[in-house]
Amino acid sequence: MTTTSTQIQLVRRPVGWPTHDDVRTVSVPLDELADGEVRVRNEFLSVDPYMRGRMNDVRSYVAPFALGETMTGGAVGRVVESRSADHAVGDLVLHQLGWRDVAQADAAAFRVLPAIEGTSPSLYLSVLGMTGFTAYLGLTRIARLAEGDRVFISGAAGAVGTAAGQIARLLGASQVIGSAGSDEKTALLRDKYGYDIALNYRDAPIREQLNAAVGETGIDVYFDNVGGDHLEAALDVFNDGGRAALCGAIVGYNSTERTPGPDNMSAIITRALTLTGFTVGAHLEHYPEFTARMTEWFGSGLIAVDETVVTGLENTFDAFLAMLRGANTGKMIVAL
Amino acid sequence: MTTTSTQIQLVRRPVGWPTHDDVRTVSVPLDELADGEVRVRNEFLSVDPYMRGRMNDVRSYVAPFALGETMTGGAVGRVVESRSADHAVGDLVLHQLGWRDVAQADAAAFRVLPAIEGTSPSLYLSVLGMTGFTAYLGLTRIARLAEGDRVFISGAAGAVGTAAGQIARLLGASQVIGSAGSDEKTALLRDKYGYDIALNYRDAPIREQLNAAVGETGIDVYFDNVGGDHLEAALDVFNDGGRAALCGAIVGYNSTERTPGPDNMSAIITRALTLTGFTVGAHLEHYPEFTARMTEWFGSGLIAVDETVVTGLENTFDAFLAMLRGANTGKMIVAL
Repeated sequence: MTTTSTQIQLVRRPVGWPTHDDVRTVSVPLDELADGEVRVRNEFLSVDPYMRGRMNDVRSYVAPFALGETMTGGAVGRVVESRSADHAVGDLVLHQLGWRDVAQADAAAFRVLPAIEGTSPSLYLSVLGMTGFTAYLGLTRIARLAEGDRVFISGAAGAVGTAAGQIARLLGASQVIGSAGSDEKTALLRDKYGYDIALNYRDAPIREQLNAAVGETGIDVYFDNVGGDHLEAALDVFNDGGRAALCGAIVGYNSTERTPGPDNMSAIITRALTLTGFTVGAHLEHYPEFTARMTEWFGSGLIAVDETVVTGLENTFDAFLAMLRGANTGKMIVAL
Repeated sequence: MTTTSTQIQLVRRPVGWPTHDDVRTVSVPLDELADGEVRVRNEFLSVDPYMRGRMNDVRSYVAPFALGETMTGGAVGRVVESRSADHAVGDLVLHQLGWRDVAQADAAAFRVLPAIEGTSPSLYLSVLGMTGFTAYLGLTRIARLAEGDRVFISGAAGAVGTAAGQIARLLGASQVIGSAGSDEKTALLRDKYGYDIALNYRDAPIREQLNAAVGETGIDVYFDNVGGDHLEAALDVFNDGGRAALCGAIVGYNSTERTPGPDNMSAIITRALTLTGFTVGAHLEHYPEFTARMTEWFGSGLIAVDETVVTGLENTFDAFLAMLRGANTGKMIVAL
């Protein structure tokens, strides 16, 4: 009988890189289920770059995490007890209640998922879920990818990047260029994810590498997961009318100093570029469209997936830190 | 009888601030008019910030000026000889043949203008022409100004800025904030151009001043004529979903060093901002709409105008340099 829930809570706002002193683990007794409530044993938790931003108390499109409360975020689990007519014991569900082994709340918090034979339910935290939606939204609605466009994606071996490269290709991009932080990752980008060019940003400044690779033909779309030197590199090679979807700037997330922006901002005017930052929450009206298309692509075997899986709730925070360091290929997942 | 044309030509690409050695003045004999051609004696020439960019040989939406050729740009003059059925001697015309006292070309190069009683034809180089269109386009199509928006305009006492402040108000902005480089200019912004708040950027860092003035309520739209520290200041105070129309970055036009960009680029993501650079040439389909609305506003006495007038073709280059230094209030015009 599941009567307690172990949870990870934010107790201090990190300055620079988060440490274990910024969080605590608590076990709380669970109330009896009230009418309309559901209890879920989680199987997979999501750790995502945007969570680092929510640890800060800054004005943002997404509210900061509250101190002393459990870290929220995507999770997939199974219903173990239900007082909801719509949720049966054994149902696979997706929810946003985050870093805990057992989640209990009003049934409306839990969305029942279809089981996909032969694949892990964790995919609903990655390519079939918010991660895939982030890539799809950024390319289609934010960067307005058109057929024939040349596309550069930074952080290409990460969860969003691996999805974005494939989606760009499926949407008709004529060339897909990616950056990642190891030769293993760049090989994977070329061999598994269909990138035409994959650059290891540790080999030489990404600006030099990108100019050398595509300085002549340029890029039309940039999907930014990294920021900093990568955005600067992209601004160098944009064609007229280029569009950047700014999704993440992981390079600065744990910086305690203000770092200067690109030294070539004037390109935004001279080449009539558009830079648009986005978070998915403001665009959920496109989610059904994403689900329809991604389900078809995935079902047709057109989408390759990698996961980096860490096991155990007690390792969630370390998995989060490892993801921020770029230790993952594809989505970083915590399996309970 | 007009038989020669005196013209100012670019002979060297400036490094940093342009100097007189970068241009030369030549007098060229004029051919007899061919059938379909028109000869125009110019009355007013335009000197504009974008011309500095065109002096460089860099990839840009607008082609660089050719070395050894006459500087092109907006000019207004009167037809003195015509072999075109559509252009009568005495007609007031607008053209793009630039820095010369007499212009001669196929009639298609000259657009006949209506005379406006009691006002100078030079207004077709400013608020009734490309300058006004730049302000209108940037606010309506690039920054997508909505009623009730709070708007910040840098370089507000310049040609585009004085137009933009008034247009923003007419389009329903709830608050208009401007920056300029002297107390005389900020007084003018408040008293003549309807700005709610006018900041003298020489008093203290514009970032501090803007945060103090509107840090609480924020801005929704930023019309950027300056770049650099002004763009950084705007990024600090943007509300969620804010839009920046990047029209100019005069602060960097004559810099020989790469200057770092804003240190707060992450705001673009966390507040889902859009930064869009633009030049008017790519959006001429909106020109008739602009003309219709501006003619109505202007005719109703709703548009105040300042000009800074320099006399004599021989002073054109100095007028251009003075404009780059911000010596003008409203449009800098050369009267011949």
